[in-house]
Amino acid sequence: MTKEIIVFRYGHREIRDYRVTSHCSLVSRALGAKKIIICGEPDKNMKKSVDDVTQRWGGPFKVEFVKDWKEELLKLKKKGYILVHLTMYGEEILQKEEEISKNKKICIIIGSQKVEKEVYHISNYNISVTKQPHSEIAALAITLDRIQKGNEFNIQFKNAKKQIIPSKIGKQVIDLK
Amino acid sequence: MTKEIIVFRYGHREIRDYRVTSHCSLVSRALGAKKIIICGEPDKNMKKSVDDVTQRWGGPFKVEFVKDWKEELLKLKKKGYILVHLTMYGEEILQKEEEISKNKKICIIIGSQKVEKEVYHISNYNISVTKQPHSEIAALAITLDRIQKGNEFNIQFKNAKKQIIPSKIGKQVIDLK
Repeated sequence: MTKEIIVFRYGHREIRDYRVTSHCSLVSRALGAKKIIICGEPDKNMKKSVDDVTQRWGGPFKVEFVKDWKEELLKLKKKGYILVHLTMYGEEILQKEEEISKNKKICIIIGSQKVEKEVYHISNYNISVTKQPHSEIAALAITLDRIQKGNEFNIQFKNAKKQIIPSKIGKQVIDLK
Repeated sequence: MTKEIIVFRYGHREIRDYRVTSHCSLVSRALGAKKIIICGEPDKNMKKSVDDVTQRWGGPFKVEFVKDWKEELLKLKKKGYILVHLTMYGEEILQKEEEISKNKKICIIIGSQKVEKEVYHISNYNISVTKQPHSEIAALAITLDRIQKGNEFNIQFKNAKKQIIPSKIGKQVIDLK
């Protein structure tokens, strides 16, 4: 089953969050999400750097900014997306990954700053990837890997200009266009 | 088999890399590494913020800074650590995770800036987590999860002052001391 996965980033401050939100976006793309929706300060530079990667390495992948997290999440829910909020306080991913991965349309919510209480209530699942403080980038990556069971490693990106040939040592890149 | 895992971070610039290296460190700790060795500018604030997490949430976990990456990696190799360098150009993790996870002592190398060619040669494995550009934090997380086969979720941290009780909704934390 091919999934439709969207990542929702709750919070972004221009400049200060540039690198971390870029990582979130690139991880979303590389691991099979079709879109990242960012609720925070619109950031043209951040979007451009991610769009440039999509241009070179293929897509489809979109970066979108929205103002109202609640309106957006409710809209996604209406469209049939299951909302999976990643938080160290949530239920353990090992217990829930099977159930979650049965869904075709999944929206994974990751916070940067503290998330409003209502996010916990609107979400279908609050899920922890370890009960320890670490990184939303890591939690997102492990969740994407587990709910897709490694199938994300076989994605064929469209309109890529470059492609890597795996090597034991060194770098091998081919130009496709 | 309990593993001895060390993470080696190649490159760190004070202030500029504070957040990303913090994420790398916290992910290392949360997912079962005993230590992160950082080759770059010593950064007291970064180390302190990670040590504070270890104080509160338990350990053992150490943050160390070194100057000479080559000397350090050769030392680890001599001590019996298998060096696994994460790079988008490397062999695919799906093909190699079984083989790698048979080792007890593993050092995972992650870059920040561009890594010297020699790192590819000194490493026992050059491994890619997708053949796409994304995030060393994500690559590290997936690698730690895959080579430990989810066992890292059952780690009992020692001397923790706080512990989370997984919840469907909301936050439940108990004070242990």
